[in-house]
Amino acid sequence: MPIIRVEMFSGRSEEQKRALVRDLTDAFVGAAGGNPDSVHVVITDVDKSNWGSGGQLCSDKFPD
Amino acid sequence: MPIIRVEMFSGRSEEQKRALVRDLTDAFVGAAGGNPDSVHVVITDVDKSNWGSGGQLCSDKFPD
Amino acid sequence: MPIIRVEMFSGRSEEQKRALVRDLTDAFVGAAGGNPDSVHVVITDVDKSNWGSGGQLCSDKFPD
Amino acid sequence: MPIIRVEMFSGRSEEQKRALVRDLTDAFVGAAGGNPDSVHVVITDVDKSNWGSGGQLCSDKFPD
Amino acid sequence: MPIIRVEMFSGRSEEQKRALVRDLTDAFVGAAGGNPDSVHVVITDVDKSNWGSGGQLCSDKFPD
Amino acid sequence: MPIIRVEMFSGRSEEQKRALVRDLTDAFVGAAGGNPDSVHVVITDVDKSNWGSGGQLCSDKFPD
Repeated sequence: MPIIRVEMFSGRSEEQKRALVRDLTDAFVGAAGGNPDSVHVVITDVDKSNWGSGGQLCSDKFPD
Repeated sequence: MPIIRVEMFSGRSEEQKRALVRDLTDAFVGAAGGNPDSVHVVITDVDKSNWGSGGQLCSDKFPD
Repeated sequence: MPIIRVEMFSGRSEEQKRALVRDLTDAFVGAAGGNPDSVHVVITDVDKSNWGSGGQLCSDKFPD
Repeated sequence: MPIIRVEMFSGRSEEQKRALVRDLTDAFVGAAGGNPDSVHVVITDVDKSNWGSGGQLCSDKFPD
Repeated sequence: MPIIRVEMFSGRSEEQKRALVRDLTDAFVGAAGGNPDSVHVVITDVDKSNWGSGGQLCSDKFPD
Repeated sequence: MPIIRVEMFSGRSEEQKRALVRDLTDAFVGAAGGNPDSVHVVITDVDKSNWGSGGQLCSDKFPD
């Protein structure tokens, strides 16, 4: 049942996402119990031009 | 006022989304009342490589 | 896999939520296909004092 | 800590988003207090074909 | 159509929320245009024991 | 910047949430890099009567 939603800057590889899904699922079950088969992880890649921090766009604040 | 948010695998047609918006709105009003004009439906298409199930990426677990 | 998230004013009964979950699931599968067993519906009851519309709190705009 | 999430129709410019992040952060701190440096704003551009209003797709109801 | 979702620590007054809804709506319209009557703001009060920052619960990191 | 949002059945203890925040943060940084201090985790406890699975309320399908 648990749903884990991740919003992070765009640019991670599929390999990083593979590890992320595996490790977040393990971390959830290890800390809060439950069945790993029922854990959903939904990833949203967010461009820095769509993320504001401290009143500034991150594309301005943290240019690539 | 009600907001219905749908996250589903990418790939549905605009025609399917047209039916989805219509039928979800009807289903909401039928079950919970309210005015259909005030119902919002926001759809997010999620690639299988951004969705984890049971610790695996769905692009690995359910390849197209 | 699909996740349907509903945000609506607080106050609906458990019976209405039972019907809502059943009918939203049927509506999704009817319009977009997929397996009803994999459909998740997550409901959030929102107090009118936590919902703004047109710059006003709904507890002011639509008092009970 | 506060997180402000904005879902709006696609099409706004980066300049509009720059102003949006700045002004939403100021509005939050002005009304609810807190430190502007800790305010996050996450913007999601939604196509009209992914937004339903009153049972219709906005791409049908409000064509560009 | 725009939806602004705010997640913030529990404890703000209804008066602060009234100002927040008014000022966020004005800020949105001022920066991104659109009709204030169509702007929704949904507020979620989050307890510090449900918010993690830097790997710690905020109820531990920032006790009241 | 990354935000991890967890929706899970109500009932976990503060101790479980402490471990969850710590381990999800470590899992994120280990798999996707970044600075643990910038990772936010927001937990939402969802009652079984507000979660539908396969067209049924979980309070009916998985009674406590």
